[in-house]
Amino acid sequence: MAKEKPSIPKGTRDFGPQEVAKRKYILNTIEKVFIKYGFMPIETPTMENLSTLTGKYGDEGDKLLFKVLNSGDYLSYFKSEEFMNQFLQELVEVNIVDKVAEDDYQFPDDESKLKKTINNYFKVNYLSEKGLRYDLTVPFARYVVMNRNEITFPFKRYQMQPVWRADRPQKGRYREFWQCDADVVGSDSLLNELDLIQIYDEVFKGLGVHVEIKINNRKILAGIAEVVKGVEHLQTIAVAIDKLDKIGTDGVSKELSALGFSEIEISSLFEIITTKGEDKEMLQSLKSKLQSSVEGLKGIDELEFVLNNLQQINKSIHLKIDFSLARGLSYYTGCIFEVAALEGTLKSSIGGGGRYDNLTGIFGLDGVSGVGISFGLDRIYDVLEELKLFPTDTQGSHTKVLFCYFDEASQAYALQGVTALRNAGLASQIYPDVVKKIGKQLDFANKLNIPFAAVAGTDEIAQQKFMFKDLNESKQELMSIGEMIERLKN
Amino acid sequence: MAKEKPSIPKGTRDFGPQEVAKRKYILNTIEKVFIKYGFMPIETPTMENLSTLTGKYGDEGDKLLFKVLNSGDYLSYFKSEEFMNQFLQELVEVNIVDKVAEDDYQFPDDESKLKKTINNYFKVNYLSEKGLRYDLTVPFARYVVMNRNEITFPFKRYQMQPVWRADRPQKGRYREFWQCDADVVGSDSLLNELDLIQIYDEVFKGLGVHVEIKINNRKILAGIAEVVKGVEHLQTIAVAIDKLDKIGTDGVSKELSALGFSEIEISSLFEIITTKGEDKEMLQSLKSKLQSSVEGLKGIDELEFVLNNLQQINKSIHLKIDFSLARGLSYYTGCIFEVAALEGTLKSSIGGGGRYDNLTGIFGLDGVSGVGISFGLDRIYDVLEELKLFPTDTQGSHTKVLFCYFDEASQAYALQGVTALRNAGLASQIYPDVVKKIGKQLDFANKLNIPFAAVAGTDEIAQQKFMFKDLNESKQELMSIGEMIERLKN
Repeated sequence: MAKEKPSIPKGTRDFGPQEVAKRKYILNTIEKVFIKYGFMPIETPTMENLSTLTGKYGDEGDKLLFKVLNSGDYLSYFKSEEFMNQFLQELVEVNIVDKVAEDDYQFPDDESKLKKTINNYFKVNYLSEKGLRYDLTVPFARYVVMNRNEITFPFKRYQMQPVWRADRPQKGRYREFWQCDADVVGSDSLLNELDLIQIYDEVFKGLGVHVEIKINNRKILAGIAEVVKGVEHLQTIAVAIDKLDKIGTDGVSKELSALGFSEIEISSLFEIITTKGEDKEMLQSLKSKLQSSVEGLKGIDELEFVLNNLQQINKSIHLKIDFSLARGLSYYTGCIFEVAALEGTLKSSIGGGGRYDNLTGIFGLDGVSGVGISFGLDRIYDVLEELKLFPTDTQGSHTKVLFCYFDEASQAYALQGVTALRNAGLASQIYPDVVKKIGKQLDFANKLNIPFAAVAGTDEIAQQKFMFKDLNESKQELMSIGEMIERLKN
Repeated sequence: MAKEKPSIPKGTRDFGPQEVAKRKYILNTIEKVFIKYGFMPIETPTMENLSTLTGKYGDEGDKLLFKVLNSGDYLSYFKSEEFMNQFLQELVEVNIVDKVAEDDYQFPDDESKLKKTINNYFKVNYLSEKGLRYDLTVPFARYVVMNRNEITFPFKRYQMQPVWRADRPQKGRYREFWQCDADVVGSDSLLNELDLIQIYDEVFKGLGVHVEIKINNRKILAGIAEVVKGVEHLQTIAVAIDKLDKIGTDGVSKELSALGFSEIEISSLFEIITTKGEDKEMLQSLKSKLQSSVEGLKGIDELEFVLNNLQQINKSIHLKIDFSLARGLSYYTGCIFEVAALEGTLKSSIGGGGRYDNLTGIFGLDGVSGVGISFGLDRIYDVLEELKLFPTDTQGSHTKVLFCYFDEASQAYALQGVTALRNAGLASQIYPDVVKKIGKQLDFANKLNIPFAAVAGTDEIAQQKFMFKDLNESKQELMSIGEMIERLKN
């Protein structure tokens, strides 16, 4: 077999023991809060049918789907008589083939007809009918529709799984990354929004990260669109102001101007969405501006309900109204959220979500409202790493004791010791190979952050004890197995 | 958007809350034992380069790899001028194109030349350079080679992740399934084999499944091959007797006969591998039969070391020597294991493994011996399900209390209650929608196996209490929030 130098696909990563431990720490913190708030886990397959995925994430999303080749002879169609007959026939019709026969073939000046011919024949659906999960929301909607008769609604589910996007890899952006989602479907109640905001707060407090949770409402954005130019421009406005962070006020203005917005419309839009101040003042001021929009006023009502109730139960949440928060996805219809860390250099969002009134409609189940939030595991990891917020017990092995020895005879004795500790439920190891040098064995323990070593030599065997070494404090003491267990259990 | 009826790819599955809870129960049981024995977790990407995967699992394995289309315009090569020029040129050479030009085209009688031409051009590597993880062993070998300078050897790693195979789906066989592997690399010591056998034993005892752990040694099989026909026939014999379970003695005999084994050779092979009896007698009898094979005797020594030491430390393990255990994969070189459940209808193996002396050699790192075992999560799940061995706390939601109410006023009061319980660390929910009928809300609690409900009505608010209902025993009692917390914490 060829000995190639191995590598992994770009945008993907291996995780070593410490990284896995740190990732699990984040996942466990999130999961505990999900469970506390009554959410239940589901898992969906890594591969979904392309018919489930395509058309759900916009044109850009479709391009970023990873597609899986059909199994078996995936190229069989291209090798079939049927394909060849049709393809060659087309080539005759666009006058390619005669030129080849004359042996001085050139591509025609007008390539469009040829390209169309070729494109018609090389269609991806002959090759692929499955794609990798792109997010957790669409598979969840698919799951709800397929299992509608078994599910007890309102259904509060969480899901923590990797997703894949063929994005250009860059710092903090990977092609394989994890999402942790909590959604409620089958309930219109704004208490769900309250729960989700508290989940954000509780998770990030648990992780020790100071965050700001921004909130807005798509109905408010609809009201703003109505007042500024007309409600039919809602999605255009949402997509444009969603880029504020990236291209700034000037960039968004230019974009809207190019889309036919007048200067007055643009400045009146910016006047509203850049409103600053206390939440209550902001809502009050917006109420007068949107008084002609029923939809807009309903959005304000919804925000007020959330803020007032939150005020009653939890005063310590760093929630902030931001009328410029838009979120790009078209399926949001009510409250929308976004979370950003207040410290560190990673300024992009580490979580987001919102209410969608008809996500399952795309799979044939209408009238099911849902609301959900998502945590980006990989970005949260980067934030905790930068701010040094990981607890120290995620740094190495869980092993408490390494048993060391000098030869075959003391190996058998050490084996009795490690067995006894394991039987007592204590994670322990025996150095597997007979290496004579104790230093090498202790070095192994140190590298793995194993705190104790139990050494077996002739003297120790004679006394039926072990030399028990505290590797952090360079202390040692002769101990029986029972004494070691007692020490370690406390 | 079209409203198609959604489905998932064949051989894949969704897991609902109960299934996820049961799967986690198995994973946690396995993981705890891995950690206790000093193994540390790693995770590798879902996608590996095809150069890492192909040629490692035999021809059959290569066919079962799921391949991922290159991102971007994966068909661009087939649409390129370069491809078309070369392809058409070839078509001229096999006289296809002139016939097309004459408009009475027929495929030639001798299709072989044409097919070869077409096959040459439609190569999969223009389309795909990545595949889905097929097992955890090859990615681990790749990981070890890439991280050789950071790893402390002997390296004891565990890995619990899904793998994908384009096998024909059938009962108990899925296209996406999970493996849980523990391997040690960089140590020749048979103490590792001892650890791995104990891990098998401890995990299955923890799960309550009675299993038999079969053990054999590839060196013994080499010795048998040497004695029967010649050591160069080891792999042929291993592949043949690996099918004993499926095609029986007659089937294996026929296969060996077809491969040039004489009747005497076949009967002498079967005489050895079907030896029954006590382990020590079996080894004693084999010693005399293999006395001419140095390799075979070394294999017997290794088994004796394992058995003798195990006898010293753990007498309750159901370990059984089976000279007919072969395991198909060619990379095994020492001890091999296989685990089968002793009860239930699922007779296929639920775990297996062995020692391989040069797995990392395929990636350019020679001289690193390894030994490992694997647990098949999905088959273990099926066994536990059939034998009803899942504990009852994997049956539903973790929520302790559902808060119920009648109207907006009592909703706000119930919200205070649920917040207080959550602040005390108790998993609880508030029914989100105002539905008036308490029956519907209690029904929701029952369906989710929530054991308690706290109902807020006008009387309860007046007394600053809740009606605390034990839903399993149909008892109820007025309680303050403090009293509820006290009751639930005990």
